[in-house]
Amino acid sequence: MGKRYKLILQYDGTRYDGWQRQGNTEHTIQGKLEQIVTRLNGKKTEVHGSGRTDAGVHALGQAADFYLDEELEPEAVMKYVNQYLPEDIAVIGAEVVKNRFHSRLNAVKKTYTYYIETKDKKPVFERRYLYGYGSELDLDAMKEAALVLMGTHDFKSFCGNKNMKKSTVRTLFALDISKDGSKIVITFTGDGFLNHMVRIITGTLIEIGSGKRKAEDMKRILEAGDRQAAGFTAPPEGLFLTEVEY
Amino acid sequence: MGKRYKLILQYDGTRYDGWQRQGNTEHTIQGKLEQIVTRLNGKKTEVHGSGRTDAGVHALGQAADFYLDEELEPEAVMKYVNQYLPEDIAVIGAEVVKNRFHSRLNAVKKTYTYYIETKDKKPVFERRYLYGYGSELDLDAMKEAALVLMGTHDFKSFCGNKNMKKSTVRTLFALDISKDGSKIVITFTGDGFLNHMVRIITGTLIEIGSGKRKAEDMKRILEAGDRQAAGFTAPPEGLFLTEVEY
Repeated sequence: MGKRYKLILQYDGTRYDGWQRQGNTEHTIQGKLEQIVTRLNGKKTEVHGSGRTDAGVHALGQAADFYLDEELEPEAVMKYVNQYLPEDIAVIGAEVVKNRFHSRLNAVKKTYTYYIETKDKKPVFERRYLYGYGSELDLDAMKEAALVLMGTHDFKSFCGNKNMKKSTVRTLFALDISKDGSKIVITFTGDGFLNHMVRIITGTLIEIGSGKRKAEDMKRILEAGDRQAAGFTAPPEGLFLTEVEY
Repeated sequence: MGKRYKLILQYDGTRYDGWQRQGNTEHTIQGKLEQIVTRLNGKKTEVHGSGRTDAGVHALGQAADFYLDEELEPEAVMKYVNQYLPEDIAVIGAEVVKNRFHSRLNAVKKTYTYYIETKDKKPVFERRYLYGYGSELDLDAMKEAALVLMGTHDFKSFCGNKNMKKSTVRTLFALDISKDGSKIVITFTGDGFLNHMVRIITGTLIEIGSGKRKAEDMKRILEAGDRQAAGFTAPPEGLFLTEVEY
């Protein structure tokens, strides 16, 4: 009797074309994992993630699952996969889950964190893990604007997929903005996120913090239901998928 | 009237051939700095560091000085240099010092820190900044052996330069070994360090922690005055020049 396994993964997204397997499996996280799990299982095996992360986006706690025909200790699965993964991807947890478990469909809460550096020079050892904005931002204005987005809304204005056919309604449980030295840290917790949603909200908040837009514009932007109404898409290097809860 | 400036520098040593300028200035920290300072000063200008760091070794607080013919605000010098430095080198402090100041000769205390990962998989976001040893080590044995090295001794056994003509006597003020999760952190504070000294002591301590050598062997190794008596040279990626005091 086989079992379904759930892994918790960390990765540095810098050199990858994102989570989702594409033609060339070499450059996606899912592709790398499927190569290894397929070898372990002795046959082509799919790995499902909790969601796609964009090219260049990092993860501290991505979740993924797959089915193995033979039952193994979760520790042994973790050790096997880690052994073949490159240094910029690591399994930090493994467990057996119910056969019908699905990393994406069963996720109830996800947390993303975005890091912005306000100093003109990025800190050397974090340079790949934050967005080097390089100027001060008005945190109070950003916090005021963020309040408008809390709760359940149609987030179409913040959806990067122009041809999105499914519902663009999502619930934001938390949107916290805080300062850590010269860094600004924005934490998003929600039931799910649209394509580029975190990065477009971040870009819009940065435009508000820089004075290019006003905090009170956020309501109009949200209600427009139009990607053109919102701000720029903040770059991927500042973004981490921090946690997925089930 | 010109002035002498002292900079505090951070760098990720991964892609450099160490601190010291060699034929090709492109791949050393000193070479990179001299290119920029020469441009600022309008003529060939030397930059003196507190000491060389090996290829692949990092710095959190390297100190360096140079003379500019024109007096500028230290903040302006820092901004100028940072603007032209690559992302893996940064100036984090600048001040005017006395004309006769010398970063190497005036240093009274230096601190190096070495990081060892004992888990089989290195943490993704620190993978370039620690040595992936991958097994547990006996900290008590390492601490016992470290005590032997405290104080003033001839450290010839831990000197990587076979043709060292000058004194190999140095004073170790502190040699602390502690655990931080699955990492082992070794901190060295001394009046100066010989070529590869921190890395050879670390390699010897690792061999003691792994049971390959005994803690009580350290006395004999120190007294041998012979590089062959000591352990391996631990790799550069785990090492940071943390602080230089004047």
